[in-house]
Amino acid sequence: MYPYPIVVKAVWFDENRGEICWINTNKLPHEEEITCSSDPTRVAIAIKDMEIRGAPAIGVAAALTIGAYALKIAGRDLEEFTSLINSAIHTLWKTRPTAYNLFYALTRIQRSLREASSKTSDTYTVARKIVETALEIYREDVEANLKIGEYGAELVPDNATILTHCNAGALATSAYGTALGVIRVAWYKGKKIRVIATETRPLLQGARLTVYELVKENIPVTLVTDNAVGLLMRKKKIDLVVVGADRITRDGYVVNKIGTYMIALAASRHKIPFYVAAPTSTIDIEHTIDQVVIEERDPREVKYIMSKLITVEQVNTYNYAFDITDPDLVTTIITELGLIKPPYSETIPEIMSKKTL
Amino acid sequence: MYPYPIVVKAVWFDENRGEICWINTNKLPHEEEITCSSDPTRVAIAIKDMEIRGAPAIGVAAALTIGAYALKIAGRDLEEFTSLINSAIHTLWKTRPTAYNLFYALTRIQRSLREASSKTSDTYTVARKIVETALEIYREDVEANLKIGEYGAELVPDNATILTHCNAGALATSAYGTALGVIRVAWYKGKKIRVIATETRPLLQGARLTVYELVKENIPVTLVTDNAVGLLMRKKKIDLVVVGADRITRDGYVVNKIGTYMIALAASRHKIPFYVAAPTSTIDIEHTIDQVVIEERDPREVKYIMSKLITVEQVNTYNYAFDITDPDLVTTIITELGLIKPPYSETIPEIMSKKTL
Repeated sequence: MYPYPIVVKAVWFDENRGEICWINTNKLPHEEEITCSSDPTRVAIAIKDMEIRGAPAIGVAAALTIGAYALKIAGRDLEEFTSLINSAIHTLWKTRPTAYNLFYALTRIQRSLREASSKTSDTYTVARKIVETALEIYREDVEANLKIGEYGAELVPDNATILTHCNAGALATSAYGTALGVIRVAWYKGKKIRVIATETRPLLQGARLTVYELVKENIPVTLVTDNAVGLLMRKKKIDLVVVGADRITRDGYVVNKIGTYMIALAASRHKIPFYVAAPTSTIDIEHTIDQVVIEERDPREVKYIMSKLITVEQVNTYNYAFDITDPDLVTTIITELGLIKPPYSETIPEIMSKKTL
Repeated sequence: MYPYPIVVKAVWFDENRGEICWINTNKLPHEEEITCSSDPTRVAIAIKDMEIRGAPAIGVAAALTIGAYALKIAGRDLEEFTSLINSAIHTLWKTRPTAYNLFYALTRIQRSLREASSKTSDTYTVARKIVETALEIYREDVEANLKIGEYGAELVPDNATILTHCNAGALATSAYGTALGVIRVAWYKGKKIRVIATETRPLLQGARLTVYELVKENIPVTLVTDNAVGLLMRKKKIDLVVVGADRITRDGYVVNKIGTYMIALAASRHKIPFYVAAPTSTIDIEHTIDQVVIEERDPREVKYIMSKLITVEQVNTYNYAFDITDPDLVTTIITELGLIKPPYSETIPEIMSKKTL
């Protein structure tokens, strides 16, 4: 399952405990704190507070949590069991509004519950079925990371310097990451690459997580402020960009960590390829970009950095967690089913129709 | 001299002490620490370490420092006096490489020394002459702030929301600021405006200084991360941009705080006016953009925020303090001599030829 080194894991299922475990990404890189739970309310807090973050990791975590919870409450009668599971799904569903993988995973779990409970009223069997679906979602994400890495690595020239934003790495997925999956596979295939990581304000996932992951694997990495990208491109210090995504619409709008759009604009100006790496579980075939809710988070994330007030306490903020990159700025979308190229309004529905769910 | 409120001063000359005084902008907004000195070495440290920052303030501070120092060493014979002054000029000259106002101010002081000492060997007289020139540079900067404000305010529609980057305010100049001069004059003329301030990593001059200035005057201000600008423009939350400049070349390249270029690219994409407000002492008529040195500063500025390590200690960084915005992205340059519009390679030399020095 893991042909390349795994140095850190975001979320996993502990079969012995029947619990989901995760590393608290808020405490990285300074502390490696692991928590395990089968309580949907606890995991919902972990997702809201971004102990668990990154679209694929959130989706997988939600699925595994329902699995763990199902095992815990198995034995109750089917009606109560179903009601409790649906309520847990609801709790997780409303944690964060933007990343699509959460809804993708919970919808699959819901379908699994429906199918299993239509065949048997033995809630132990139904619970085991839900766990299987959750582990399937988990394993598919691992597999997707690898495939994305393989497809994406083909786009990386030897000696390239690659810019990435936020963390679309091991700490955002089930294995190697999406953007960092591309980087890892290129690296382990022997390409001499260098990475530039943006710090990614407000929560500094680039500085805290991407740098941490890459330093652990001795992949050369340079940290920059988000606003330095334009000059670095002008100075020809960046050969390509690869980022993850929280949601991709059927016409190719990419919703990703705030700041992605400005990087894409600079890349376009300097004719630098701008790649988006994401599993197809990130692709939302139903909604238009205007229907996507861009999450607004606590002003304290902007006003405080690592608990230190950086401004005048009473100032207002805007704190949108994501932005929107137009299809014309995206060179290629790298998925586990292959590379998607413009025109996206044709190629995305085409590739999604190949997907059997 | 001050038709609008002055709530905070960056640098000034204390006639009684014969010293330059400044507020340590590094400690704002949490602490208001004032230092006075006539020691060029001390002020050089203050400039390097950014206690004093902002292109016009640096220029004025350098001039006032040589004035204070000249008063202190007056009485020595002319040769020694001249040699000490030249050495002090040299010390200040090499503090920071990018902002042009420093070289502009020191060149004028040097000329003043040369002219005065050609007429008399009385170093008290020469010192007084240098102080006069320094105060002239100071007063011209105050006057330039006002004129820039008046010209610029004409470009600000009522009810506009104005984005500014870094701090081009009172804390970067001798009075009202350049970009914030425009904002202040528009405000005090009764326009209902709102300001969005980018925090401006790495040193957070937007969060620490711009917010502080505007909150003090009850001018509505909202703080955002640098990478949020693209989304805010897409959401039509920004009507115009006004920033300062550290150097403007004769063909209209604008060297300003890192991040300016990415804002200009986003403004161009969304057809939002992008204004640069600067006194003509910022305009470098001699050098091409390729000859301008972009200062690289200590990696610790990126890796630490308010003394807290935000990443893995051993990571490398790029820490360029400024970037370059192309002339085609600049709608208008607002100077004390009037508005300059494209084509800049014609209009900049034209306006500069009007200037009597």
